[in-house]
Amino acid sequence: MTLREISSLLERDFSGNEKLIISGINEIHRVRPGDITFVDHPKYYDHALGSAASVILINKKLPCPEGKALIFSDDPFRDFNKIILQYRNFMPSDKYISESAIIGSGTVIQPGAFIGNFVKIGRNCMIHSGVSVNDHCEAGDNVIIHSNTVIGSDAFYFKRRPEGYDKMHSCGRVIIHDDVEIGAGCTIDRGVSSDTIIGRGTKMDNQIHIGHDTVIGKNCLFAAQVGIAGVVTVEDDVILWGQVGVQKDLTIGRGAVVLGQSGIAKSLEGNKTYFGSPVREAREKMKELAQIKRLPELIKMLPRD
Amino acid sequence: MTLREISSLLERDFSGNEKLIISGINEIHRVRPGDITFVDHPKYYDHALGSAASVILINKKLPCPEGKALIFSDDPFRDFNKIILQYRNFMPSDKYISESAIIGSGTVIQPGAFIGNFVKIGRNCMIHSGVSVNDHCEAGDNVIIHSNTVIGSDAFYFKRRPEGYDKMHSCGRVIIHDDVEIGAGCTIDRGVSSDTIIGRGTKMDNQIHIGHDTVIGKNCLFAAQVGIAGVVTVEDDVILWGQVGVQKDLTIGRGAVVLGQSGIAKSLEGNKTYFGSPVREAREKMKELAQIKRLPELIKMLPRD
Amino acid sequence: MTLREISSLLERDFSGNEKLIISGINEIHRVRPGDITFVDHPKYYDHALGSAASVILINKKLPCPEGKALIFSDDPFRDFNKIILQYRNFMPSDKYISESAIIGSGTVIQPGAFIGNFVKIGRNCMIHSGVSVNDHCEAGDNVIIHSNTVIGSDAFYFKRRPEGYDKMHSCGRVIIHDDVEIGAGCTIDRGVSSDTIIGRGTKMDNQIHIGHDTVIGKNCLFAAQVGIAGVVTVEDDVILWGQVGVQKDLTIGRGAVVLGQSGIAKSLEGNKTYFGSPVREAREKMKELAQIKRLPELIKMLPRD
Repeated sequence: MTLREISSLLERDFSGNEKLIISGINEIHRVRPGDITFVDHPKYYDHALGSAASVILINKKLPCPEGKALIFSDDPFRDFNKIILQYRNFMPSDKYISESAIIGSGTVIQPGAFIGNFVKIGRNCMIHSGVSVNDHCEAGDNVIIHSNTVIGSDAFYFKRRPEGYDKMHSCGRVIIHDDVEIGAGCTIDRGVSSDTIIGRGTKMDNQIHIGHDTVIGKNCLFAAQVGIAGVVTVEDDVILWGQVGVQKDLTIGRGAVVLGQSGIAKSLEGNKTYFGSPVREAREKMKELAQIKRLPELIKMLPRD
Repeated sequence: MTLREISSLLERDFSGNEKLIISGINEIHRVRPGDITFVDHPKYYDHALGSAASVILINKKLPCPEGKALIFSDDPFRDFNKIILQYRNFMPSDKYISESAIIGSGTVIQPGAFIGNFVKIGRNCMIHSGVSVNDHCEAGDNVIIHSNTVIGSDAFYFKRRPEGYDKMHSCGRVIIHDDVEIGAGCTIDRGVSSDTIIGRGTKMDNQIHIGHDTVIGKNCLFAAQVGIAGVVTVEDDVILWGQVGVQKDLTIGRGAVVLGQSGIAKSLEGNKTYFGSPVREAREKMKELAQIKRLPELIKMLPRD
Repeated sequence: MTLREISSLLERDFSGNEKLIISGINEIHRVRPGDITFVDHPKYYDHALGSAASVILINKKLPCPEGKALIFSDDPFRDFNKIILQYRNFMPSDKYISESAIIGSGTVIQPGAFIGNFVKIGRNCMIHSGVSVNDHCEAGDNVIIHSNTVIGSDAFYFKRRPEGYDKMHSCGRVIIHDDVEIGAGCTIDRGVSSDTIIGRGTKMDNQIHIGHDTVIGKNCLFAAQVGIAGVVTVEDDVILWGQVGVQKDLTIGRGAVVLGQSGIAKSLEGNKTYFGSPVREAREKMKELAQIKRLPELIKMLPRD
């Protein structure tokens, strides 16, 4: 669609070349040239205008940066949602395996697995009982998904309004590369408008949660009950042990190892081992735990009443 | 039923007006006038006799408080269970969507969703694949429930006996108000005899557990993998970040914000931010973390051997 | 099968009595006399050769211990996998309830539950909607399994190779004894080659993960979102509160109680109460928390700059 067509759909003014082609739709963390995105808070205006996005839905009449376009809206969140619903409206299913799904040869789909509209699954995959692969999601070859796992649930993304939370609709996908194994009872959210990606050869244990637009590298290993928020980048060969929690919008470097129950609130360098909540390098944390054990000695030094 | 009828069913003596009407059944935390409840430990006799309950199943011949009635039983837990099973016995289902369920117009139920007996679901709801809504549970309008979530599993409530654990049967419901969204892979237990309630506009991410008889206010936001035990009250506008754990039988005040992986073992005042396991006010916890980093300086002060 | 037959299947040399009968297959943690196991790292050679196993697949030509046999392989992991796949190859299902499953009288199976090949379920059980009981798993009498729980998903067991992770196939089972109740949304992995066992009368809340080959005693009580890794032994009467995490290959002694969110990385003695991550005896941990609160007093003693 062109800038003019989208502006007409939204009934909004714009600034920029009306014939500019909008080739994609993405929220600010995952934009590429050709994309439309939105910004509705002055704090993020500069970030949005300096991003790779070609068109920005914005709630202030700022001057248009060269080579880009702006669409002016009093409610960019709502208008962005309108484009998403236009672009990809939900279609109910009446069968367990949609007729529009494409399933590769040698792939086994066990009873009670749900395969949504326009799903693509490669060859020699194993989709166990009770798995849901929601609309538009894709898996490569030799992928194993264990029972009752959900692929492509909606992003958890809301805007607080005076009257309550307003839902950002999701039109992104989950893309699972070759040789991935996902345990039982996991939930992998679709991207808001971009894709959640699980890299080649990555193995996940049971009850793991992966948020929207998170991108996971190759040959990662996640133990049970790990939770990763949205818009996280996990590079190749990362190991997360059980019950690790990862906050949104950060990067875990290649080859990092994070010990069980750690809580990650900022980006981590690769090739190091981490522990704790909040997380630190494991050897620092271990030193600290030893130091804490010396508190009785220290307290003896305090003057008595 | 009258006091006399219930006493006959249980084959127990009673004290009080035999024509007294028993209008409900509730365990001690959620009793209202007209309810029957039970108590079997001397520690809780006073609490039970002073509660709003009209009839108390009790294992000691205490004098009957005015306006109330007592039923004397050597095993109040077992007799309370007997009433529950009499009142609401489990009926197996042979279809995915029970004929006794009432589903509002505009509501979509995806393949593989199970809707039990006497369930009510409002208008314009979206029940995704593999969801289970067990018997007697109710949802309002515009409710979204993502794939493989379970509504109305039994309370986790047992009495330890010499020979093992004895199950308290559940006859309560889950009541979901309008505009609630519940993520994928969540589990919301029914009340033992009262209701588990999710207030209007509350939004939950994936893999969240809510215990029996817990009451959640309006416009709360819970991130993934939060676990809340039974008989908790969460007031309006509370935000719980990922993997927070909440113990039973406490209250989280309106507008409280609890950071990721925190563990809550006692009630929290509203409009404050909390962190840690055990949880503290976040700024106190942050100060403490800074203080701990000064331990090496302190240890240098210790006399050497 | 005899030693000679297995060696022929693998096309490998052996040392020992060719007529020795191999009666079972087990990885090193759960071996019994008659079993074949494997070892591929010099660090574990002694442990494997001194174990109860009768036959060891090994990647070094060591002398054969008396009464045992060795099979020499350049890749014992791959050859062990070959035996597993020979012994128990996956058979796809085309029905919700397999014809080869044996279901006891009085047992209710709700809609959408999947019962795999050769499953055995006892009498008076309740299998709720959306449960998956995968091939060869067994449950005793009076067992309750709540909605969307998965019994018998594969072990999370991989060998890192230069090109990525190599999966150890699972041929073990889950065995659930009488009077067990398992909550909604749980995942119980099958043993690699031995069995995962849930002892009589044990009760589990929702969203609990149990790893492969873990053996749980009688009358244990696990609160919601507990995660237990593989090859753990939990003795009788153990109580784990919510969100506790347990690492692999350790033992929790009889009657131990572990408070919420604790992280267990080594074996625990029975009949004590524990707390923390890493876990300590609860009263030690509580003392430590009180000591940490005295840090401001200690810091005041530091010399000022």
